[in-house]
Amino acid sequence: MPYDIHDRSLAERGQQRIDWAARHMPVLRQITEEFAAEKPFEGRRIAASLHITTETAVLVGALQAGGAEVALCASNPLSTHDDVCAALVERGIAVYAHHGEDLASYQRHMEQALAIQPQLVMDDGADLIAILHSRPEEYEVLAGIEETTSGVMRARAMAEQQVLRFPVVAVNDTPTKRYFDNRYGTGQNTIDGILRATNVLLAGATFVVAGYGWCGRGIAMRARGMGARVIVSEINATRALEAIMDGFQVLPMHEAAPLGEIFVTATGMAGVIRREHFLLMQDGAILANSGHFDVEVDTAGLRDLATGSAQLRQHMTEYELPNGRKVYLLGQGRLIGQAAAEASPAALMDLSFADQALSTRYLFEAYQRLTPGVYDVPSEIDERVAVLKLRALGVQLDTLTQEQLAYQHAWQVGTAN
Amino acid sequence: MPYDIHDRSLAERGQQRIDWAARHMPVLRQITEEFAAEKPFEGRRIAASLHITTETAVLVGALQAGGAEVALCASNPLSTHDDVCAALVERGIAVYAHHGEDLASYQRHMEQALAIQPQLVMDDGADLIAILHSRPEEYEVLAGIEETTSGVMRARAMAEQQVLRFPVVAVNDTPTKRYFDNRYGTGQNTIDGILRATNVLLAGATFVVAGYGWCGRGIAMRARGMGARVIVSEINATRALEAIMDGFQVLPMHEAAPLGEIFVTATGMAGVIRREHFLLMQDGAILANSGHFDVEVDTAGLRDLATGSAQLRQHMTEYELPNGRKVYLLGQGRLIGQAAAEASPAALMDLSFADQALSTRYLFEAYQRLTPGVYDVPSEIDERVAVLKLRALGVQLDTLTQEQLAYQHAWQVGTAN
Amino acid sequence: MPYDIHDRSLAERGQQRIDWAARHMPVLRQITEEFAAEKPFEGRRIAASLHITTETAVLVGALQAGGAEVALCASNPLSTHDDVCAALVERGIAVYAHHGEDLASYQRHMEQALAIQPQLVMDDGADLIAILHSRPEEYEVLAGIEETTSGVMRARAMAEQQVLRFPVVAVNDTPTKRYFDNRYGTGQNTIDGILRATNVLLAGATFVVAGYGWCGRGIAMRARGMGARVIVSEINATRALEAIMDGFQVLPMHEAAPLGEIFVTATGMAGVIRREHFLLMQDGAILANSGHFDVEVDTAGLRDLATGSAQLRQHMTEYELPNGRKVYLLGQGRLIGQAAAEASPAALMDLSFADQALSTRYLFEAYQRLTPGVYDVPSEIDERVAVLKLRALGVQLDTLTQEQLAYQHAWQVGTAN
Amino acid sequence: MPYDIHDRSLAERGQQRIDWAARHMPVLRQITEEFAAEKPFEGRRIAASLHITTETAVLVGALQAGGAEVALCASNPLSTHDDVCAALVERGIAVYAHHGEDLASYQRHMEQALAIQPQLVMDDGADLIAILHSRPEEYEVLAGIEETTSGVMRARAMAEQQVLRFPVVAVNDTPTKRYFDNRYGTGQNTIDGILRATNVLLAGATFVVAGYGWCGRGIAMRARGMGARVIVSEINATRALEAIMDGFQVLPMHEAAPLGEIFVTATGMAGVIRREHFLLMQDGAILANSGHFDVEVDTAGLRDLATGSAQLRQHMTEYELPNGRKVYLLGQGRLIGQAAAEASPAALMDLSFADQALSTRYLFEAYQRLTPGVYDVPSEIDERVAVLKLRALGVQLDTLTQEQLAYQHAWQVGTAN
Repeated sequence: MPYDIHDRSLAERGQQRIDWAARHMPVLRQITEEFAAEKPFEGRRIAASLHITTETAVLVGALQAGGAEVALCASNPLSTHDDVCAALVERGIAVYAHHGEDLASYQRHMEQALAIQPQLVMDDGADLIAILHSRPEEYEVLAGIEETTSGVMRARAMAEQQVLRFPVVAVNDTPTKRYFDNRYGTGQNTIDGILRATNVLLAGATFVVAGYGWCGRGIAMRARGMGARVIVSEINATRALEAIMDGFQVLPMHEAAPLGEIFVTATGMAGVIRREHFLLMQDGAILANSGHFDVEVDTAGLRDLATGSAQLRQHMTEYELPNGRKVYLLGQGRLIGQAAAEASPAALMDLSFADQALSTRYLFEAYQRLTPGVYDVPSEIDERVAVLKLRALGVQLDTLTQEQLAYQHAWQVGTAN
Repeated sequence: MPYDIHDRSLAERGQQRIDWAARHMPVLRQITEEFAAEKPFEGRRIAASLHITTETAVLVGALQAGGAEVALCASNPLSTHDDVCAALVERGIAVYAHHGEDLASYQRHMEQALAIQPQLVMDDGADLIAILHSRPEEYEVLAGIEETTSGVMRARAMAEQQVLRFPVVAVNDTPTKRYFDNRYGTGQNTIDGILRATNVLLAGATFVVAGYGWCGRGIAMRARGMGARVIVSEINATRALEAIMDGFQVLPMHEAAPLGEIFVTATGMAGVIRREHFLLMQDGAILANSGHFDVEVDTAGLRDLATGSAQLRQHMTEYELPNGRKVYLLGQGRLIGQAAAEASPAALMDLSFADQALSTRYLFEAYQRLTPGVYDVPSEIDERVAVLKLRALGVQLDTLTQEQLAYQHAWQVGTAN
Repeated sequence: MPYDIHDRSLAERGQQRIDWAARHMPVLRQITEEFAAEKPFEGRRIAASLHITTETAVLVGALQAGGAEVALCASNPLSTHDDVCAALVERGIAVYAHHGEDLASYQRHMEQALAIQPQLVMDDGADLIAILHSRPEEYEVLAGIEETTSGVMRARAMAEQQVLRFPVVAVNDTPTKRYFDNRYGTGQNTIDGILRATNVLLAGATFVVAGYGWCGRGIAMRARGMGARVIVSEINATRALEAIMDGFQVLPMHEAAPLGEIFVTATGMAGVIRREHFLLMQDGAILANSGHFDVEVDTAGLRDLATGSAQLRQHMTEYELPNGRKVYLLGQGRLIGQAAAEASPAALMDLSFADQALSTRYLFEAYQRLTPGVYDVPSEIDERVAVLKLRALGVQLDTLTQEQLAYQHAWQVGTAN
Repeated sequence: MPYDIHDRSLAERGQQRIDWAARHMPVLRQITEEFAAEKPFEGRRIAASLHITTETAVLVGALQAGGAEVALCASNPLSTHDDVCAALVERGIAVYAHHGEDLASYQRHMEQALAIQPQLVMDDGADLIAILHSRPEEYEVLAGIEETTSGVMRARAMAEQQVLRFPVVAVNDTPTKRYFDNRYGTGQNTIDGILRATNVLLAGATFVVAGYGWCGRGIAMRARGMGARVIVSEINATRALEAIMDGFQVLPMHEAAPLGEIFVTATGMAGVIRREHFLLMQDGAILANSGHFDVEVDTAGLRDLATGSAQLRQHMTEYELPNGRKVYLLGQGRLIGQAAAEASPAALMDLSFADQALSTRYLFEAYQRLTPGVYDVPSEIDERVAVLKLRALGVQLDTLTQEQLAYQHAWQVGTAN
């Protein structure tokens, strides 16, 4: 089996850490057992571009248990854990990834993963899907799965322009992904990443969050929970109103820029914090991104603008601006919870990866009836994942009585009767 | 003009209070000006069953400004403000409502409001709609608008059973209603109602919320904000998981019953807290409902069960149970924020009533193209309301640059490019 | 027995409400039983100036059970509950108070209460103590008890100027008063009072709190809990830093004035919000006070300044300013939780009134050994109250093991051993 | 100059990180300038046992700027940063510390630091003070400063037993230390340490905090802020009541043990979580300590009890219990914010280290008038530090007007006048 990783000798430590993650992924463990018994992927080839973390290893394990042949490359050059790569290779997965690889290697590794001639691609940012569509003649892919807001946006754009060639399930949009991983996961790992990168005090800091989608509200909620004073910027009126009534101040970025001490972007959009904003900021301002791509803070613009720079801590670069002030970019503007921390905790990845695993089975069963387009995760899958998770947590729901079931359909009963 | 109210001499005080509400309803004020200029309802007759509060008076004023003839009855016997009724009659609205009226009067007043032969009904719990459908031959209604979860559930049941005779716009389901009125409005007025009814300390109290929909999460959030320890009960797995990750304990009602000191229902379902639960409760437990109908706490069952009762405070009845313990029912189990407090603040009603007002105009324009069924508020209306509100608050949004607009459609740009 | 109350026929309703309060005052109930058994106040006369609420009635009942003869007048003209007065008279307490009495009656009632020739005065704002010291020749008082920050400040000023004639126990300063009643009690009842007086939406409102003492931080915490954006003003650097690190913005009042929608004072100081601030405020600003005296918002200055006024709701007066804007004063600037709501909940008054009851016994035992001055509640009393409260709540503490007790005194054990 | 550190070549990186810390320590920077101008420590020798972090380097720099000769050893074998040691040696400080040194080295390094024959010791856990008192004949120390609760407890025990030989200023007890470093600092760095050590999801986790002092409440507040459900254990009734009214559940440890997923101790006491509790815990429970010494979780008892162990992640050891369950000890039970994260942020250390610096000057001026005993930081120092901090943050206070200053002393003005 071909592969390209940093150091195979890290396999044992990688496996130990994968086991720790697996402890917190009871839903995926149960699905792995099902797959092992039923072998739904016998003879199937899957190429996956994912953050190569301990949790991803558990997902890949489930696919493998179900009979799939899997090739894996990274979805972000900085989020690869070399020890996890080693453990996966040890278990027979063709991994192509090095932590911190340059863009050339990153791109080459994608090509190598696609060399498996996959029937299904599992994507995290739609980079694989984009390659497949740039050279469609080379591949015969039946279906794809996409995990992020940014990637779904790309797939939707492809569908609108009628160039998308196969059905893509948008795991990102399912409640068990969006409400949980985006909100609670990104909320926590953004705080975690900022603390690891800087060790600054959050209590009392003025903390600007760009975007009040599920990620943004998770970040805002947790920043407040750590004692920060949070300012939100938005382009959507309803979300802005929600932010206000959640007790946050809402300002456009050019008004927030001079006030903030810490800035985090979570928008799915490019150039959210850019040259005109950098120049308004206080000396010492800290810049981080929690969106999928490294374009939300205009890092290229920042480098252009800067009169000097220094790597002060592992994940923090100081940029001196023409006005003499210094700003501090974290994790090179890549998503901070991946770059400086360890991404979403296993307990949350359990949900979205369970969606991924079950959607993979669904797509192999259903691809023939699905025209090219972006599809939601079937709601039965989503509900099943939530129910399995609650059961694993030992939490009990109420159930409707016969009378209550009847009441649901009884429109005749109201105040006046 | 016929009408039936408690005391017309209360009009001046009512008008003063309506003016206070209008101060906090800038969106509806602007719509009123538009309607006054454009007269979209000239010659139209509208029957409305609404909580007759100062905010409702501002809505009715907007319809009247637009040229409509309006007849108004109550949607809850306890939420009527007699001074508001008086002020409305003074301004030429045919009001049929007395605070605290009995069910016979309540029902008769509905019939009187319908005597106007409305072309459109505005409903809050679907009681008017139900009457219209029980004697369809008597009325020729073109369209309806429904404001509550409970009422939409009824209308949907009618549509499923194919008995619904006209299009109904579900204002309840629009973001500016559900996210705002249900969450922030019910959240605040439930706390307010409980405090007015009891003056108990919330800090440190064990507070059980049945239902983690938009109302339930608003109540849970505010109860925690007042220092309570909150337990949530749910029937839906995804919502239960959200409640857990928001930091609440989730238990089925029969396990929450012995722990709670204060219980609030917000489910849209009947019999959520019932005989079997009453008997498990601690001495001193307090019971309130924030769902639309007074069936969520089984008040009939409670009265049956009780060996004695006493009205201890204006909105609090003590029931002695066979086991010797006492429980305290607030506002007779009717929605507590209406019964013991003053419903949602004007600043929120501004949103949902702006939706109502604009949906009314929309329905008179569009009813012919709409088959019987339950419809969402058109998203343009919803967005316009949010934008108007932000503008009134003086809050600015960011706007997308040309580059950003282009980026939205550029699927080719990713990590690998 | 002489008395002067509004309407004795209200006694039954008053007693029912007193019973409801007593349910939430288990500590005072237990102390009442002790006093009834031990009769520590046999032959003693006590004059009390207190907010005449249901909770006060339970305290007075404890003193009476212990054998005391009690005369009671109000400590605030607006906080008197006439039905409670009636119930107390029915039980043999000489009450002199009418809800809403004018200052002449208020002062006359104090004199009437003092006519009992008390050996101990129980004060709430130090008004009785001040009268006693203005005509010291008329009275022979052994000791006093003072409940509020404002009153303790007065007593301390008297002690500094060496005019204080007897020992005064400052219940206000004891942990079970300050941490609980001031923080959780004032926090809740301020929110409650504002909602009853206005029904405005707190979510998203800019809420200015003057003072970050125990009251101020309780108010700030609860205002945030209801969704407001809170700004704090302070004169003390350490408190200001705490407010910042608790996530609040800190501004001087002249900078907060143009930003706030709701203002609450809790400082113990006069003229905190005054003419210069009123003129900076937005149209619609709401003004309330939660300090003991009605001097924190300069109401006299506001009335002088105003070009017109109107009583819009029961506890809200509109003032039109020379600049055409309107501001809204709640409860005439008297402490809003008393004026518009029902003061601190019984569950908290249980703590400070238990301190009062036990301090009364302590003073009758100890007054001879105490020189004139302001004294803390003995810490044994404070601890006993906390322990009794926890027991009533059914909460268990950990207890130190033998090894742990030894560890407390073992300075030799550290890292290096 | 003698010294003993790991690797002097790390100096440049150490200095860069010290500069980053210094950016967030404006108060200490200003004090350093004062000291440099006034040279208050000319000819003085100081031995310090401190966590050797970037912030400590800034403090030591201030002492050195003031003319002092300083010898520095570690106060915890795991908290030493080798690059900081190198930078300090480069600047002429005699440092004796290696990250992760064993107890023998740790103890030898203390002796080496004391070889400077200090006139003043700066301690963090009272280890130096204890050594000095075990061989008093060898040293002539004029005064000491102690930073922690645990160390102050030891010094107090020595004073009670009348063995303390010089005055000790308890920086720990000053408001700017206790309210800030203990609460906001430990609160943040405990969360940070747990996340770095485990990457578990805090949202929805049951999080047990032992102790509700300033550290404990900081931890509880931040754990809730991250979405955890928090349970508190206490031995003090008043603190337990506060925890309850802050919305936390309070349980004794033996009842919390079976419920918790994460446990943190912050008590200053030994054996808070011990054998009997380990055996009650769920499989997967995580154990951490945020008290100064590694005795709060009984790690020795845990090792005795365990049937096996494995180092799963850098700061996490798995212990298998006789009942087959596994528990996970973080940072070997040493204070987790130091062991796995980077201690309190510079912005907070700025406050307590400013207290240390100014107290050092005070002690050299005042030691002759002070008998052996434990002293508070003079309140002027504390207030000055808070004022300097606010000024650095650009935050303005209100100031009292002439009228207000007069009001403070005017006991004659009350309600009745």
